[in-house]
Amino acid sequence: VKEFDLINTYFKPLAKGFPGSLNLTDDAAVLDIPAGFQLIITKDAISQGVHFIGNEAPSLIAKKLLRTNLSDLAAKGTTPYCYFLAGMLPKNTDEAWIKSFTSGLAEDQKLFGIHLAGGDTTSTLGSLSLSITALGLVPKNSALTRSRAKIGDDIYVSGTLGDSALGLLSAQGKCPHDAFLINRYQLPEPRLSLGQTLRGIANSCMDISDGLVQDLEHICKASNVGAVIEAHTLPLSAAAQKIGTLLALEAALSGGDDYELLFTVAPENAKNIAALAKKFALPIARIGKIANGKKVRVIDESGKEIDIEKKGFLHF
Amino acid sequence: VKEFDLINTYFKPLAKGFPGSLNLTDDAAVLDIPAGFQLIITKDAISQGVHFIGNEAPSLIAKKLLRTNLSDLAAKGTTPYCYFLAGMLPKNTDEAWIKSFTSGLAEDQKLFGIHLAGGDTTSTLGSLSLSITALGLVPKNSALTRSRAKIGDDIYVSGTLGDSALGLLSAQGKCPHDAFLINRYQLPEPRLSLGQTLRGIANSCMDISDGLVQDLEHICKASNVGAVIEAHTLPLSAAAQKIGTLLALEAALSGGDDYELLFTVAPENAKNIAALAKKFALPIARIGKIANGKKVRVIDESGKEIDIEKKGFLHF
Repeated sequence: VKEFDLINTYFKPLAKGFPGSLNLTDDAAVLDIPAGFQLIITKDAISQGVHFIGNEAPSLIAKKLLRTNLSDLAAKGTTPYCYFLAGMLPKNTDEAWIKSFTSGLAEDQKLFGIHLAGGDTTSTLGSLSLSITALGLVPKNSALTRSRAKIGDDIYVSGTLGDSALGLLSAQGKCPHDAFLINRYQLPEPRLSLGQTLRGIANSCMDISDGLVQDLEHICKASNVGAVIEAHTLPLSAAAQKIGTLLALEAALSGGDDYELLFTVAPENAKNIAALAKKFALPIARIGKIANGKKVRVIDESGKEIDIEKKGFLHF
Repeated sequence: VKEFDLINTYFKPLAKGFPGSLNLTDDAAVLDIPAGFQLIITKDAISQGVHFIGNEAPSLIAKKLLRTNLSDLAAKGTTPYCYFLAGMLPKNTDEAWIKSFTSGLAEDQKLFGIHLAGGDTTSTLGSLSLSITALGLVPKNSALTRSRAKIGDDIYVSGTLGDSALGLLSAQGKCPHDAFLINRYQLPEPRLSLGQTLRGIANSCMDISDGLVQDLEHICKASNVGAVIEAHTLPLSAAAQKIGTLLALEAALSGGDDYELLFTVAPENAKNIAALAKKFALPIARIGKIANGKKVRVIDESGKEIDIEKKGFLHF
């Protein structure tokens, strides 16, 4: 199948209804940014054997790729606008693969309100590599950032932590098979509505992609503060706990790919957070506090510091 | 070397002086689009063994990647704004490679007035793959397009055609070694100044990346017109002619990777084009006319049609 036929059959429908895409007849898109808005742009790449196993349905690979980018937009409090796709496909990629891949994109485009605006499809001699550049809009100067966490802020996370890292182990046969955990690894939920609502409420926000401790360190560094995580408050799913409490805690602290929001809020806004959890029917857990210093410390229920490196809690 | 160290040492300097990049401390960039402007976005991916040979200096690979994207911006009449980079690097990529690659980007950033605003660096089990998303600005509703070529327009191209395809053959040892041609393959010249000046002069414009005939077909299809190429007027470099007149003609008609501008202009604007050629010290050749119909035809000096498929002229 020729590149232009593939574009016509499978990619043009993804750009339909988005005039800036020029119906994918051009090498570039022409976009109008509404007055009073800023443009948020993120770019994520994934590669077979590194970010996905390779035996997943192509539609699932497509969804994970799009959702990891949408999660970056969620973390800035953004409304999705459009995205660009680069597919570097092995020579033996067949039409059925493209069909399933684009059907996954089509489903998620509807779900999250975003359109394909352009991109590039090329062949590669290596394994499958994909990259998306996603664009979102926020009212001027209202984007959530990592750099404004304040000492005394409560630290919150959405959903449950560690599921994705355990899901990968489960998919690899390294721990018991669990469909819930595998689904959490393959199909993250970008917390777009929550992110948008956190504008003006949260002092800082990011999504957890590298693991809670490492990502919280990014907020601390950008905001010039420290943090304390109360280990016993970390939200663990029933499925994660069934795998083993210690492994679940480890995954929650340092497992990647959760794509939950990590944010900090002044204590006087605690009531707002409870209301949001109810509104979005989404668990939101308070897991600690922004503190003096520069370090992320983890304490147990009695307030005693856990040496997370020594305990191997950063192993994921 | 760890990802974050690489970012600090080699990528942050490329984002310096561009506030929207948030100094690469975030997963997303925050961009202000000036009032009265539209945003032009293009995304191109390249892969080892397909778009470059792999034995080039990493700085040259970096420049070609950036320049192919800048060429797409040039074709829309755009002023470069910023770009995002995704690098999918084999596990054995060493620091010297990154150092050379980013030094190439730094040099071209200065030359073309563009900054790195974000991106993603990941490892791949396959061969090296790279993608850039480049952003440019144009005054509202003034972007050059492919869809407004008019019957009677003269067709022009910048520079000389076919050099790049011959340069690849030369680099592969399939035709005599020629440094000029190899340089044309490895280091295309995005015609940004020419593109910007063509706004309001050219009726249609694109860059030649797939070969003249195929790319002119894109303009014809988008504009619902036909075209006639006068083969004897195609601008061939001395180096290309030295390889052989027939092969040079073939490369000019269907060789890819030239990244020259292909544009159409109403006959009454011919004087402007001559002035532009002088201003930019850049050859601009009239190579034919937009005509009735839907086809791109090629004629010889006597006006007789050349059957380019039968003659093997689309072999590149």
